[in-house]
Amino acid sequence: MRGFMDENYLISSEAGQILYRDYAAGQPIFDFHCHLSPREILEDKQYSSITELWLGGDHYKWRAMRAAGVDEKYITGDGDPREKFRLWAKTCERLVGNALYHWSHLELSRYFGIDEPLCEESADRIYDRCGELLKKEEFRARGLLRRMGVRALCTTDDPADDLRVHAALRREDLGFRVLPAFRPDKAMQADKPGYAEYLRALGRANGLDINAPEDLLQALSRAMDRFQEAGCLASDHGMKILSYTRDQRKTGEIFSRALAGKAVSEADAAVLSSYILDHLTREYARRGWVMQLHLGVIRNNSPRLWRLVGPDAGADSIGPVSDPQALAEFFGALEKEDRLPRTILYCLNPADNPVLATMAGNFMGGGVPGRVQLGSAWWFNDTLEGIRRQLDEAISGAFLGYFVGMLTDSRSFSAFTRHEYFRRILCQRLGEVIDRGEYPAEKLATVGEMVRDICFGNAARFFGLN
Amino acid sequence: MRGFMDENYLISSEAGQILYRDYAAGQPIFDFHCHLSPREILEDKQYSSITELWLGGDHYKWRAMRAAGVDEKYITGDGDPREKFRLWAKTCERLVGNALYHWSHLELSRYFGIDEPLCEESADRIYDRCGELLKKEEFRARGLLRRMGVRALCTTDDPADDLRVHAALRREDLGFRVLPAFRPDKAMQADKPGYAEYLRALGRANGLDINAPEDLLQALSRAMDRFQEAGCLASDHGMKILSYTRDQRKTGEIFSRALAGKAVSEADAAVLSSYILDHLTREYARRGWVMQLHLGVIRNNSPRLWRLVGPDAGADSIGPVSDPQALAEFFGALEKEDRLPRTILYCLNPADNPVLATMAGNFMGGGVPGRVQLGSAWWFNDTLEGIRRQLDEAISGAFLGYFVGMLTDSRSFSAFTRHEYFRRILCQRLGEVIDRGEYPAEKLATVGEMVRDICFGNAARFFGLN
Amino acid sequence: MRGFMDENYLISSEAGQILYRDYAAGQPIFDFHCHLSPREILEDKQYSSITELWLGGDHYKWRAMRAAGVDEKYITGDGDPREKFRLWAKTCERLVGNALYHWSHLELSRYFGIDEPLCEESADRIYDRCGELLKKEEFRARGLLRRMGVRALCTTDDPADDLRVHAALRREDLGFRVLPAFRPDKAMQADKPGYAEYLRALGRANGLDINAPEDLLQALSRAMDRFQEAGCLASDHGMKILSYTRDQRKTGEIFSRALAGKAVSEADAAVLSSYILDHLTREYARRGWVMQLHLGVIRNNSPRLWRLVGPDAGADSIGPVSDPQALAEFFGALEKEDRLPRTILYCLNPADNPVLATMAGNFMGGGVPGRVQLGSAWWFNDTLEGIRRQLDEAISGAFLGYFVGMLTDSRSFSAFTRHEYFRRILCQRLGEVIDRGEYPAEKLATVGEMVRDICFGNAARFFGLN
Repeated sequence: MRGFMDENYLISSEAGQILYRDYAAGQPIFDFHCHLSPREILEDKQYSSITELWLGGDHYKWRAMRAAGVDEKYITGDGDPREKFRLWAKTCERLVGNALYHWSHLELSRYFGIDEPLCEESADRIYDRCGELLKKEEFRARGLLRRMGVRALCTTDDPADDLRVHAALRREDLGFRVLPAFRPDKAMQADKPGYAEYLRALGRANGLDINAPEDLLQALSRAMDRFQEAGCLASDHGMKILSYTRDQRKTGEIFSRALAGKAVSEADAAVLSSYILDHLTREYARRGWVMQLHLGVIRNNSPRLWRLVGPDAGADSIGPVSDPQALAEFFGALEKEDRLPRTILYCLNPADNPVLATMAGNFMGGGVPGRVQLGSAWWFNDTLEGIRRQLDEAISGAFLGYFVGMLTDSRSFSAFTRHEYFRRILCQRLGEVIDRGEYPAEKLATVGEMVRDICFGNAARFFGLN
Repeated sequence: MRGFMDENYLISSEAGQILYRDYAAGQPIFDFHCHLSPREILEDKQYSSITELWLGGDHYKWRAMRAAGVDEKYITGDGDPREKFRLWAKTCERLVGNALYHWSHLELSRYFGIDEPLCEESADRIYDRCGELLKKEEFRARGLLRRMGVRALCTTDDPADDLRVHAALRREDLGFRVLPAFRPDKAMQADKPGYAEYLRALGRANGLDINAPEDLLQALSRAMDRFQEAGCLASDHGMKILSYTRDQRKTGEIFSRALAGKAVSEADAAVLSSYILDHLTREYARRGWVMQLHLGVIRNNSPRLWRLVGPDAGADSIGPVSDPQALAEFFGALEKEDRLPRTILYCLNPADNPVLATMAGNFMGGGVPGRVQLGSAWWFNDTLEGIRRQLDEAISGAFLGYFVGMLTDSRSFSAFTRHEYFRRILCQRLGEVIDRGEYPAEKLATVGEMVRDICFGNAARFFGLN
Repeated sequence: MRGFMDENYLISSEAGQILYRDYAAGQPIFDFHCHLSPREILEDKQYSSITELWLGGDHYKWRAMRAAGVDEKYITGDGDPREKFRLWAKTCERLVGNALYHWSHLELSRYFGIDEPLCEESADRIYDRCGELLKKEEFRARGLLRRMGVRALCTTDDPADDLRVHAALRREDLGFRVLPAFRPDKAMQADKPGYAEYLRALGRANGLDINAPEDLLQALSRAMDRFQEAGCLASDHGMKILSYTRDQRKTGEIFSRALAGKAVSEADAAVLSSYILDHLTREYARRGWVMQLHLGVIRNNSPRLWRLVGPDAGADSIGPVSDPQALAEFFGALEKEDRLPRTILYCLNPADNPVLATMAGNFMGGGVPGRVQLGSAWWFNDTLEGIRRQLDEAISGAFLGYFVGMLTDSRSFSAFTRHEYFRRILCQRLGEVIDRGEYPAEKLATVGEMVRDICFGNAARFFGLN
């Protein structure tokens, strides 16, 4: 039995230990997709307690506490912060092998210098120690990011956003870059309540009235101009499933109904979103933006939690797999019309990994390494096993050498140790190949360069970070 | 190379060996879902030979023998029992790594004290030795159960059953409890032949004439009253797929057709079963019964075996994955109307594991640990690899600490060594985490308590066994 | 860290090393499904360079080079052969853990006696050395096959083929057998362009005019007669999904439209192909041919590569999973009407493995070991991990002992080291079971016999190779 979280944590491979120490550990972080609040960076948010930092918005932990039978009062409710933390600590004790156990202890160690295991008995001590540290300047939002060597990060922003916070951030001396990313989901979901109001807001933010489908496209283009000026390098879409159709004849009619606030079916909304996607992909390709597609989630499934907490309450789950034929038609259309942006596909259903990875492989080429690729293990897959599954696909799909690597996808300022988590698993996976004699040990430096690229360089080049 | 089936069988992990020896091994068995015949327990059935015990009804072994090319005469036919056993032994020799190899040798060892490998050469010796032992009192049905430390078990019973056998069993001094479980599949399958006859039988057994949908509900409620009196703690449903619909306007019309013995389509049957399920879930929740859903099997696929053997001939296979949206609507409706029972989801298609586990996670909470959870690896998944896959989901899904654990799902009185099989794999899985330094070795006792709970305590509390 | 590719390459298991050395290594090869060109065997093709041998038609390598960002000119274009090889070598360096890395180095070692790692630095040396060797007589097509101990191979041939090349091959003293295999895909795809022309060619090749559905069946039967005379033992079908329907009333009408060159929908094409399949399965069963079904691929997805390269350009990917109910109906019909041939199911989507393996298990029996079975890991699954996944299914499905094993499915004369690749992984997998004490080490010879059978004997018996 090895010591708890020693220097070779998660890495039993001899070659892997060298890869991590000599190549991965020192790389900076480019977190190209996260949900950090730009405002909290601007205000350099200070946390009142580890409870606020850890349980304020982390639906991963909320789900674990619910599974343990904890009362909602001590999860998202108005329970005492210290008591909440105690219950989290107690919950944590039974999370043997769960990523939350790994993450929590990495965060305690790397941010707070606390190396004792979190459990009911240690909860108060750890709560107090973290509380002291969080009062310090360097434990405010910016300090937490700097501590992890963050070089740049991309937030997630709506086309109706005025980007004023981002503008203010650009005037600050942060020590890292904060870039907006373009997430037009609301503009594409005509079947959701409030769509007509959203169109008005989108128009207002972009200086025009949206009365026709073409106006909507123009508003999005203007938003993209603003985003680009603010340093945007990427877009991002969240979808239950990619339902793309080339038959868009009914676009005008559907749009009119949507604008009038009438009900629009899921199928009709897909026609309109296909129309918009055609425009967006053309723009992404033209601007050199990366397109990110997050596929396969169904959201807000619990009426109880919707009522109590609202969206992002931890009631989302894995949705259906993709329709391979629809994907082929979508990417085929993009390629044919020369508007295929560099693309990252993220999928929630692990059964979709092989489908998406091999579909991506059809559209590689054209001088861009890893042009269309399967992104890192997402959400429920962001675990030791899930990360290994994704790496297996990257290896099989022959794009690991050009893989853009890890991102936090998180709302939390203390989530950046997940890059270390990923890097250790990556080095272990590749080290095993060398240990077993399947790759020559004397060429370890070649693998090391590749590891370095996966940690930072590939993403920087892919996104055009300069 | 380690010795065959030594004391650390299936457990190479150092911590895992301690977990098994000190925590798992001594736990009693609560087999909360099996298909044992209550009558055979009442009669304290005696087996004429190991062939009767092993090959009398075990379609797992039948499939293996067919794969080996054995003539059906020596599988389910009228072949000589000794010859059947020889052919099974010969088949077994090539089952390297298959669960049947593990199970057979565990049963030989733990029930019969036979530790030599089963093969063509040893078949006769083993046949004779088992034959001698099976003549003994303690090798009758009850003795076999007692030998494994069974504390309680739940059989699988139809709402039309009069439960007289169960009543008689309650008057016996068995040393363990035998409880009925409520399986109303026949009442919900209006598209199956014989439905109208079944309705009449159901009515008779529950003291009313079933002439309208409400009568059917009432008959089921009366059956549940009888089951509850007999100690029932759980229901159980088997379904190809959960096809739940809220639009039940055509219920009356569909019911009339079904009652008249007319053909009912699969889609119409789903309307009627949704109507019934609404009632049942309300009752389960009210009574505190656990609801078990077995999803994703398609049955009786071989016309040849249907003709030769009938149902349960070993011609069932893995069906389609679930529709995540339908699951969300079903559980959402239950939660909204405050009639969500504690629920265990079993799925046959392993690609469904992540979908069901994360869907379950949406409906955790309300003070019940592990309220809706993915059940243990079922049927074709009840293998070393399948059990590990399910444990991986339980770990990722943060409910392993509250997991209700193993059940045999078997018709066989010698299947209870599968609990040992599961426990060893569980201890190995958790021990690995400790061995690798991902959980502190000094907190092994915490994991040990969890192991104990998974072996017995969690299920006892979840089902309300007292 | 072990040495690169030592004698126990891919086999860390102690028992596995014995199994490979004493049982697997010496077995001959029966490659019962490949895409070698019979003409190239007849002409005893000589390769001008390792580039022609390796990059002339290998879309696996093309995909990897595209993922690396190589210009198409140096992949399928008119780039200089030496430069192409350099770029392949450079690409190869980053394929840590990828099957192409394994395959390339196995081929260099076993065919060319080159044991140094392929990389940018060694590329020219290796290019030159291979170039010298390829000039030798024993490095022509036939010599490459003899070098690997090929006993027999089955090519892939169209029913419209005159089989003259096969006839000529039968008159040669090759040292191995070359048999045709029957692949009637074109006859079954009435929705594809050129179907009417194909029908005319098929008629011509088989001496009749095809004017009605029955003519088509007769042409296929005549082709089967010709194939049988040429030693054919097997058929083979490639399908996106098995869409079999028993309702074939519209066959005549659909056929007429197809014959007239009119558009036929995918659904209508499925009616016609079901009609044909009924006939073919009857013939296969009668003739004792093995039926192979390749399921779950969607082809030619990239418009760009279709334009530049044509079909088989490396733009195919994993398609949808099977419909279990449709499979059950298809096999049920075959069994009921006593026309179920021995069958091998190959699937591209790994999520389909458990469905197909358990469906196959329903139709085992009738005195033929492994009668309907899941075939070896195909295409994107032909990797270390994919082969292990398939072996896991074969173990769980209790048919590993009767598994027909590996095939190359390749167009390449240097692909036959993939049999060694498979055999090493097989021995490792089974050796692990013995090492762990789950199978008695003293019965290693039993496992050895099984290994031998999986390498050659099972396939020889299953296909009736004599």
